Parts: sequence; structure tokens; C-alpha cells
Amino acid sequence: MRNFLLVLLLLTTGYQAKAQPTAPLTARLDKVSLTVALDPDGRPTYTVSLGAKPVILPSRLGLALADGKGFDGPMTLVGSEMKDVDNSWQPVWGEVKNIRNHYQQLTVHLRQAAAPGRLLDVTFRVFADGVGFRYEFPAQPALQYFTVQDELTEFQLPADHKAFWIPGDYDSNEYAYSTTRISQVNSSNIEAIQLKSAPERVQTPLMLKADNGLYLNIHEAALLNYPAMMLNVDTKTFSLRSQLVPDATGTGAKAYLQAPEHTPWRTIIVADNAPAVLASKLILNLNEPIALTETSWIKPQKFVGVWWEMHVNKASWNYADTSNIKLAGTDWTRLKANGHHGANTANVKRYIDFAAQHGLQSVLVEGWNVGWEDWANNWKEEVFDFVTPYPDFNVTELQQYAQSKGVKLMMHHETSSSVTNYERRQDAAYRFMKEHNYDAVKTGYVGRIIPRGEHHDGQWMVNHYTRTAQRTAENQLMVDMHEAVRPTGLHRTFPNWLASEAARGNEFNAWSSGNPPEHETILPFTRLIGGPMDYTPGIFQIQLESWNPARNQGKQVHTTLAKQLALYVTMYSPLQMAADLPEAYEKHLDAFQFIKDVAVDWDDTRILLAEPGEFLTTARKAKGKEEWYVGSITDEQARTQTVKLDFLTPGMKYEATIYADGKGASWDKNPQAYQIRRQSVTSKSVLKMQLAPGGGAAISIKPAQ
Amino acid sequence: MRNFLLVLLLLTTGYQAKAQPTAPLTARLDKVSLTVALDPDGRPTYTVSLGAKPVILPSRLGLALADGKGFDGPMTLVGSEMKDVDNSWQPVWGEVKNIRNHYQQLTVHLRQAAAPGRLLDVTFRVFADGVGFRYEFPAQPALQYFTVQDELTEFQLPADHKAFWIPGDYDSNEYAYSTTRISQVNSSNIEAIQLKSAPERVQTPLMLKADNGLYLNIHEAALLNYPAMMLNVDTKTFSLRSQLVPDATGTGAKAYLQAPEHTPWRTIIVADNAPAVLASKLILNLNEPIALTETSWIKPQKFVGVWWEMHVNKASWNYADTSNIKLAGTDWTRLKANGHHGANTANVKRYIDFAAQHGLQSVLVEGWNVGWEDWANNWKEEVFDFVTPYPDFNVTELQQYAQSKGVKLMMHHETSSSVTNYERRQDAAYRFMKEHNYDAVKTGYVGRIIPRGEHHDGQWMVNHYTRTAQRTAENQLMVDMHEAVRPTGLHRTFPNWLASEAARGNEFNAWSSGNPPEHETILPFTRLIGGPMDYTPGIFQIQLESWNPARNQGKQVHTTLAKQLALYVTMYSPLQMAADLPEAYEKHLDAFQFIKDVAVDWDDTRILLAEPGEFLTTARKAKGKEEWYVGSITDEQARTQTVKLDFLTPGMKYEATIYADGKGASWDKNPQAYQIRRQSVTSKSVLKMQLAPGGGAAISIKPAQ
Repeated sequence: MRNFLLVLLLLTTGYQAKAQPTAPLTARLDKVSLTVALDPDGRPTYTVSLGAKPVILPSRLGLALADGKGFDGPMTLVGSEMKDVDNSWQPVWGEVKNIRNHYQQLTVHLRQAAAPGRLLDVTFRVFADGVGFRYEFPAQPALQYFTVQDELTEFQLPADHKAFWIPGDYDSNEYAYSTTRISQVNSSNIEAIQLKSAPERVQTPLMLKADNGLYLNIHEAALLNYPAMMLNVDTKTFSLRSQLVPDATGTGAKAYLQAPEHTPWRTIIVADNAPAVLASKLILNLNEPIALTETSWIKPQKFVGVWWEMHVNKASWNYADTSNIKLAGTDWTRLKANGHHGANTANVKRYIDFAAQHGLQSVLVEGWNVGWEDWANNWKEEVFDFVTPYPDFNVTELQQYAQSKGVKLMMHHETSSSVTNYERRQDAAYRFMKEHNYDAVKTGYVGRIIPRGEHHDGQWMVNHYTRTAQRTAENQLMVDMHEAVRPTGLHRTFPNWLASEAARGNEFNAWSSGNPPEHETILPFTRLIGGPMDYTPGIFQIQLESWNPARNQGKQVHTTLAKQLALYVTMYSPLQMAADLPEAYEKHLDAFQFIKDVAVDWDDTRILLAEPGEFLTTARKAKGKEEWYVGSITDEQARTQTVKLDFLTPGMKYEATIYADGKGASWDKNPQAYQIRRQSVTSKSVLKMQLAPGGGAAISIKPAQ
Repeated sequence: MRNFLLVLLLLTTGYQAKAQPTAPLTARLDKVSLTVALDPDGRPTYTVSLGAKPVILPSRLGLALADGKGFDGPMTLVGSEMKDVDNSWQPVWGEVKNIRNHYQQLTVHLRQAAAPGRLLDVTFRVFADGVGFRYEFPAQPALQYFTVQDELTEFQLPADHKAFWIPGDYDSNEYAYSTTRISQVNSSNIEAIQLKSAPERVQTPLMLKADNGLYLNIHEAALLNYPAMMLNVDTKTFSLRSQLVPDATGTGAKAYLQAPEHTPWRTIIVADNAPAVLASKLILNLNEPIALTETSWIKPQKFVGVWWEMHVNKASWNYADTSNIKLAGTDWTRLKANGHHGANTANVKRYIDFAAQHGLQSVLVEGWNVGWEDWANNWKEEVFDFVTPYPDFNVTELQQYAQSKGVKLMMHHETSSSVTNYERRQDAAYRFMKEHNYDAVKTGYVGRIIPRGEHHDGQWMVNHYTRTAQRTAENQLMVDMHEAVRPTGLHRTFPNWLASEAARGNEFNAWSSGNPPEHETILPFTRLIGGPMDYTPGIFQIQLESWNPARNQGKQVHTTLAKQLALYVTMYSPLQMAADLPEAYEKHLDAFQFIKDVAVDWDDTRILLAEPGEFLTTARKAKGKEEWYVGSITDEQARTQTVKLDFLTPGMKYEATIYADGKGASWDKNPQAYQIRRQSVTSKSVLKMQLAPGGGAAISIKPAQ
């Protein structure tokens, strides 16, 4: 009986054992094929193609270990296995309600040619839209605890592709994108956000476009217990080489591992059209299934927050203007209030009222807790305690008030990157949250990391983010991480990890040169390939001078108002902020209606039109409803986007409400001009959307009454 | 009224403001005098003498900061203040019940001659037995957050003193002492315990003996928020220069500070006789008063433990012999027990029975919790969870059993130096302790520190130890730290921090070349100057082969049995282990009676005879009782120690029980030979103690019945 079941299993999974493999080994699905071989020096290589088009030319695989006995020398092929998998699964929340996971898997067993003859497996999964592979270290006497010194994975591009890239800063992803040929990658003139990158080092997800029409995205999936992968670009040969983020020791060590273990998946999404890249579920599929059993407490949601008013210099995070505060021993009630502290009880009530009135689920409050007087840039360990409110923030009163209004307060834990401090206080901080009825927390990691010498994207911090996802889950808390490592699909495994920032958000428009109009057309192809972003869309008061003329001179959001609405659809997240101030929305309640209506969880998603750096039009069907929402955005060019509504149910009548750029609108000259019109539509309708320079359009489509 | 009080205050404290100071400034008490001056380059120096004898020749003061604008250049004298203080205080526990704190204080206000003109104070306290001084950074606009790059404090010795030293290992104090002239300090041939020291770097407390009869001890007091101070020895000029333990960044940064702040006190104890150094309360007096209000839960105590049987290879910490265990995901019940796991329920009950029978307060159990299979030397973050017992350790059953016997179980938290892991689990671990009726914890820090790159004796770890003292205190838990930084008198402030190891304990006799017979005569002059040590005395089964002939060949404790008894008096600690196995004690219950009787808290202490590296005889009066205990030990030389009992109450009759080396006893040839005799004594009695080579004697003196 047992043998029978085994045979059945082998048959259904397509398992084929090959005791005596003959190189090269090939796996394929649809048009994507992958070949693995040993080069003349005995070093493993892989090759990827899409139909007849080369995607990755023969590229090296391998890892160097700190003990000098790594997988960087000659290897012998011990064996290989192949299997076919085709199944599907349903995410707790997502862009679609059902995800097909279909791949052919090739596992290659390698052994060092030299002593101690350590074993290394490389597992490849070939999907219809790309390839994932990872290194696996089997349990073996010759390899128990070990340190990865360098990963030698190479992505040899066949040509000088166009690339959408940001510098390889180990501590920040908050850059505007550069669009150049691979041969022109050079960040030496880009101002560092945290740590200056080597000039030819870039981050992933790296979006590439080939002259032959292929679109490629290189990233990783399931980044766990390992540093983030950056890419060193050889501008002459068009080779990309893995650069892992180092640890604090200064020895160049990258990852401390214990066998059995494996690396994250290295991913190559490839398609002959741009929308297919955005529709890919390859990275989610390479992540492990959900680690939670009970998920009813996980709620996709929209929120407002005491937040943007600090960015526009109308209020402050800090309660007093005194600097040089010590967390221990300070009597906060004796500080002199600066009179414009945002997180005061009355102001928070105003946001609660607004959320309740408009059906938004929650209110984020930043600056509620003591320590903001000189929290940044001091590399200070004892910076926040996460449980002591400022004297003007009444926790209990607000808890009761929010509850009476049916609104949740969202906790904020800025760590100032003093992560050791946060970790030792997390238990108490989460207890405090539960006691006060908070069920979601936004975390932040501004500044240099403590443990000193560690990086935001190194193994130690990667493990911190994972632990935080786990520790919040244990407490049935949702989490949104800012300044964390960029996502790699872990929200499949930890769906309470609703979103991350980990890119240049809308906030940069408030206090920097801002985000160029193309920015939001690139992010879905780069940062969002790994998971949802808390971009904080919805700024209506585009010109920021009116909030504080002295400090915001010339500052503005680099889109039209209508484009801000479109972002709720084009920038996928189960957690969407209505980021502007209530008084900004109250001036445009007709436009605000879209934010009230738009869903945050979806049954289906269609990428209708897309080109990175230029335009994007996305349609999504609200979860469990016969409602569709469409977002359409452009870069600095005015465009007409033709949207066929053939995704609607045939024969049904709908009413579309179209929030479009107004006549003469443009992101820089006339950003707030918008027009709203209603029209009946069916699956046969075609809408022509006129997008202003830096503009956009949002459409809600509901069944006709 | 207010002015009147101020005047009164000034009068009583001897405050003298000097607006226009004239260098040099001098403070003195009894025979000790201190002079502060600026050298011709404007750099501050200090000088110490005892009567006419120079103790420290003019020596440099100063600090370099990471921003290059430190206190290492010319300074101007802004002013100074002097005050006299004479008061006394009572420790929660200690060697004496009342401590006089009598000193003259000189505070020197300095300003950088160059911009930005930062201010630095140096405060000196001159006691009758030495000097303490510290750097103080006043609150000032030009100095808020700053990084100490180097401390330039110098101790210029007048001659080539004899020194008792250990290498300047940033991560371990567990060395045997070298006794050489200052000019001969060189550790290049000493095997590193953790991190190889620079050859001419030594640790404090550094004990020195001058040819002119002076005894000096250089150390520090109140080490808080700062790295430990080591000393770089100039073997030609006999100058000692402060070497702070660096942080993880590799930049040479030593301490991250925020003004107002101060360094620990640098201490110089000086006397013309050795016993006076041991009797000094200078370091305790330089520490801050107690930080706790309620202390009834703090209990000096004796304990046994499932511990020595692991050191002598009779039992193991680990439950299984499998290596390569992962904390998460291991089903511990399915591991194959190795059959000699020490912390099993039945064995622990045996220790509980023994403790109950003999009136010992508690039972330490090491190896009770999962993770010991490959806990050491792997630099592994997730090594212990501190709450999961091995399958054969029944927490609830043992809790009930111990309670029924009136015995406490003592918790053990080995961290394997994965301190980030410990910190994030401390809350849960202490909750677990409270739930299971534990009130004391022994912590351990074996191996390399995580955060990786940090050192045991660096600022980050110093803060960890302090926090652990505070977090245990908040939970009314006592703590005993092993492999922590050596103490600096902080038990005055945190009396729940009963003891530390932080030196080469008795355990080294079990598995190394051992501790030479002189070792215990040096420790009180070095390690114990800072505070109590958990040395784990009381080994009766001196030859260790009988426990495990195969693995303990030639291993023995390097003392006689009688000397093991004497250590309970000569090696002060409020926490004393009876370290041997119950079966070892049961063979010598007559000698064990001394361990049962000896106190762990004292009204008074007399250092009767002492010479570092040679001999030590100490008498102590039990707290609240008319009982005295005497310990007398020698190095490898046989000696006669003449002990006058003039400390006894005149006119009272006492019975002395003398536990002496037996005839022909010697540490190496005949270590277990002892004799016990009783005799009546009074304050006029004189006892001649015959100490065998490596031997000792212990005396209990109780009122005659």
C-alpha cells in the first residue's frame, strides 16, 4: 500500500529520478526554457530563453564561504530530479482571488570536486512567465554552521538593455529611478539617501527592456534569514552579479547559516509585453504558503492619519522644541509645548470624526509617544519606549472615542533604527496595543541601524522584519513597515504584513525635489513586484505652500489631483492611506467620493495598458462585488488611453463615474483641475481617457441601479 | 530664608567657589594628596601622593572625540570648586554593616582653548585610601550627542612596580594572573581565552606593589554607559594609558554619549599595607546610592547546583548527543536522550533533598532548557528560548517539590552571547520565572557576542548588563552574571545583582591546566576589588578522575580540601555555591558542617594578614549574630599564619571549630587530608594555623554554650 502511494505520488508530480545525469539539463514551461550545465572548469551555469530569444546567456552559479571551502570552485554533477507542479491557491487578500502555481522543477545535485566534497543543490522552477532558482545546503557532516562570504550568481544579459534602476544603497530604497542603458549605469552623481552606493551597483527589483521587445524583471522571492541581493553591473559585458549586503563585522561576511538551509529564490520574470510582467505571480508562488491558521482579524483597509500635516510643516511630531532630551528621567509634563504638536487629543478626534463620517476604517497617529524632540540622526539607542504618550495625547479618552465612532486607531512605532531598543520593548509595546484596542502598527526605521554597523538590508535586519511579522501575528496585529527592506512576496506567508514602504513614497514631494511624474509608472514594475507599497496616495492640496508659506516654498506633489485618485488602483496595496488632511478633502468631497468607494481587496485584476516610465492603466474587480475600479496614469506626457471595458459581465448595465483631469490640467501648472462625469457602460463600451501631463483618471463602475 | 539655607549648605559641605583659580589645585585627605595642573601645552594633568611618597607622577587627562573636536588639545581653566563630604550608609548586604564615605572633592572646570570652546569638568574625590576621578560633560550647545574615540587618561607610575595582571582581552577575564615587573608585561605567549590582547595591554583591577612598600590598585567605579577601561602599558616609562574597548563599527569608536553625561570613575587605591587595599570601600563609595526602594526580596544565600557534574564529565548540559539542532521546529521529545543529561527531574530532586536536609537555600539547575546540543562556538542567534524545558525536566513537578521542601530553584539563562536573542526574550523568560516561583537567575555569556562585532566589555554590552540588573530588579529577581564585564561596585546601586563571575573561577580546575595555588590569593586584590565573585568554592572531591577516568585524567582542583572551606570567607560573595556533588559532601559531612554554618552576609570584616600572590587571612562577623568566621589561605608554600582573635567581644567565651589541613596534606599530593578540632577561645586567644602547600584553614567561632 505504501509503495503504491509512492508510485502514485511520483506519477502525479511527474517525478523523474536521474541517477546518471547527462549535462546539459533542461526544464521548460510554455515558451520559457532553462538549461543547466557545468562549464569547462566544472562550475555550474544556467541559461534562460523565451522561445528563440535569449533571456539570460550562460551565467555562473556559486557561493564563496568564509572558511575558504565554498562552492566557488569545480563541482561535479551527482544527480538531478525533475517534477511538474500545477495547483492553485487563494490568498487571504490580493489582486486576484485565485492564483495558479504552475511550474516545472529541476533540482541539480552538486558536489565539490575537491575536499571536503560538500554538497550543494540548486533548485530551478520554470514558470510560463519566468524562472526562479535557489541554492540549497543539504544536511551533511561537512557543512553545519557556515558563513556565506559572497554569492556569485550571475545574470548575463544578451544585450545592452534599457534599465530602470536605483543605486545600491544598503540602507535605503528611497530613490527616484534612473532610466539608462545597462552600459550607462552610474550612480556617482546621485546624492546618497543613506549610504553611498558603488557607482555601478543597483538594487532589485531591476526592470529591463530589451530592444527585441522582451521585458525582464530580476529580483528575489522569500527573502528570509539572508541579506538582500543587490546587483553589480558590468557596464561593458552587460553582466549582473549578485552583491549581498554585508554584516557589521567588517570582514565581508554576508550570511550566517546552519544546514539544512537555502537561499531566497533568485527570480527572472520575462514576457514579450509589459502588462504580463505586472500580472506575474511568480514571486508569490515561490513563497511558502501561509503560516497562520486563523486570519479573520486581518483586514485590508483605508485609513487617514495625523501624518501629512507634519510633512507639510503645519504640525510637528515632537511636543516640545527643546532638543537634547533623554528618554529616561525626563518629566514630559514639564516640557514647554510648542503649540503645534499634531498628535493632540482634539486633533486626533477630528480625524476620528472624519474617518467615521466617510467610512474609513482607521486613523494613524504619528508623534503620539515621547522621544521625538531629537529622535533622528543621533544614532541614539534609548530613543523611544513605545508606551508613554505625550501629555496632550490621552490614550484612554481616544480609545473610548474611537470605539464609540466605530473607528480603529492605528499605532505608530518609529524606531529611529534603534532596533535593539525596539526588540527589547516589543513585548511591552504590543501588550500596550492590545490593552488599548489597536490592531495595526506602522513601524519605521529612519536613520542608521543599531546594532551599529548593521544595514537595513543585511541578514540581521531581514531577520528582524520577519520576526516582527511573526511577533505581530502572534498578537493578531497587522503591520506596515517603513524604511524596511523591499518586499519579496512574504505577504503570502505572513498576510498580517499588509504593506511596506521601502521605496520613495509620496512624502518626498513634501520636502525634496519630489518624485518626477514618471515615478508612479515605474514603481509597479520595480518596487511593487515584491509586494504592496504604502505609497500614501490621495493628496488633493497639490501645492503645499498654503500649509506653510515660509517653509514649503515651491513644494508640490508632482501629479494632478485626478492622478492621485488613479493611484489607488494602479498602486496595489491592501492598506491605502487617504493621506491628505481632512480640510483638504472637505474642499473636494466630490472627488473624495472615489477614495471612499475604491476597494482595497480584489477578486480580479487586469493590466490593460502599461509601459514602464510612461503609462499604466489597471482595472480591478472589488472582492465579492460586481464593482470595478480603473486607474490610468501617465508620466509628464499628456496621453489618450483607450480602455475597453470587455472585462465587465456581458449583458449587464453599469454606471461608470469618471474622475478625470480637468480642462487645461497639468501636474505643474494646473494640478487641481478635475472633472467628474457619469455614464452608463457595458462590456462593449470603450472609454477614451484624456490624461493631462503628469495626470491620470480614475473610474468606478457599479451595476446600474 | 532661601539664601540662608544656601549658606548653611555651603558651610556644611565646605563648598568653596574659586572664580579665578590659580594652578595647581590641590585636594587632600589624611595622607593622600592630589594636585591638578595644566602642562606647558595647556593639557590637564594630575598627580597623586601618599605622604611624601609619589603614587602617580604628573599624568595626562583628556579624551579624543570622533568629530576631531575633543578634549585632547590645549584647555583653559575656567574655575574650580572644592567640598568636603563625610557621611555613612548601610548596604543591603555586604562585608560590613556600615560604610563611611569621607572625601574631599575638587571639581575642575575646563574649556577648549580652540573653537568650539567646549566645556569639560573633571571631578576628583580624595579619600584616605586613594583617589577617584571622572570626566563630566556639562549640558552645552556645542556638545550634545558625541562619540568618544579615545580616552587619554594616564597613570604614570614612579617606578617599575611589581604587577599582578591578566591580558587585555576585550571579551574575557578568565585568565590566570601573571606576576611581573611593569617592564616585563608581555602577553604574547599567553593563550587567548577569547580575543588575543595586544602584548602590553592589561585589564583592571590592576594590582601593583612598589619597592617602597606601597600597594596600589587601579580600576574604575560605576561603569555605566561606557566601555570598560583596559590599560596600555609602556614598559619603558612605566606609564599606563587608558584603552577603552571599541564598538562593532571598526572605526575605533568607543562610546556614544549624550550630554550631560560623565565617564565612570577612574580609581587609584593606595596604602602602605596590603590589607588596607582589601578593606577599601572607595569603589563602593563612588557608586550611586541604591536605586531600589523595597529590598526585602533580596536574599544573600548559599546554593547547590546541577553544575559541577557537567564540568567533571559525569553528566551533560545537553539532552541528546545529536548536533546541528535548530531551535525552531525541533520536536525535542523525539530526540534520542543520551542517558546522562544532568537536569533531569529525579536528579534535581536529589539536589533539592540535599539542600533541604542541610539548610541551603536554593538549587541551580543548568541544562534544563532546550538548545544545548550545539550551543557553543557557532555564533548562532536563535540558540535558546529560555522557556522550553527538555522532555525529562518537569518544571511544574519540580516547582511543587522544591516548594514542599522549602527550597528555591535558581534559574539559568545561558545566552551563548547571543544577546539580541536574549534581550528580545527577557520579558517572556522573566514571566516564566515568576510563574514558576524562581527568584534568582544565573546568566551566562559564553562565546562571541551577537550583535556581531561587539565585545563583552564594550559600551553596548555594559549597557546590557545594567539593563539586565534593572529588568531583573523590576521583576524582583536576583541575578548572578557569568562571563560579564568585571564589576565596578554597581551592587551598591543594584543590590539584586548579587555576584558576577568575570574571572577565572574554580571550574577551570576541571578542564584546563587549572588555577595555580596562588590564584585565590590574588583574586581578592584584583577581580574582587570591583565586587563579589561567584567563584564556586567547596570542591571536596579534589581529584577529578574518579568521576570520569577516561576524560578527567590528571585533572584536579589545585587546593587542599581545607582551603576550599577557607574560600567561603576569603572570597567575599553574598551568593556562595557549595559547588561539589551531594555524594562528595556526604563522604565528608564533618567538613561540610563549615559550609552549612558559614554566613553569606556580614556585620564586620577584618583583613588580618594579606599579601597578594602569597597568603590571605580574613575574619568576618555574621550579620546580626555573635559568630565569627575565619578563612586563611596560602599559595603553593606551606605557611604558619598567626591569628589573634582580638576582634572577639572581650570577656565572652566562644567555641572555635578549626577545619585545618591534615598531617602531610598538600594540594598536589594529599589534598583531601583535613583535621577538625574544637577549642574554647576568647578575645585574648591566638591561633597558629598551619597551612599546607596550596592549603588553608577555616574557623567558625560561636558563643560557648
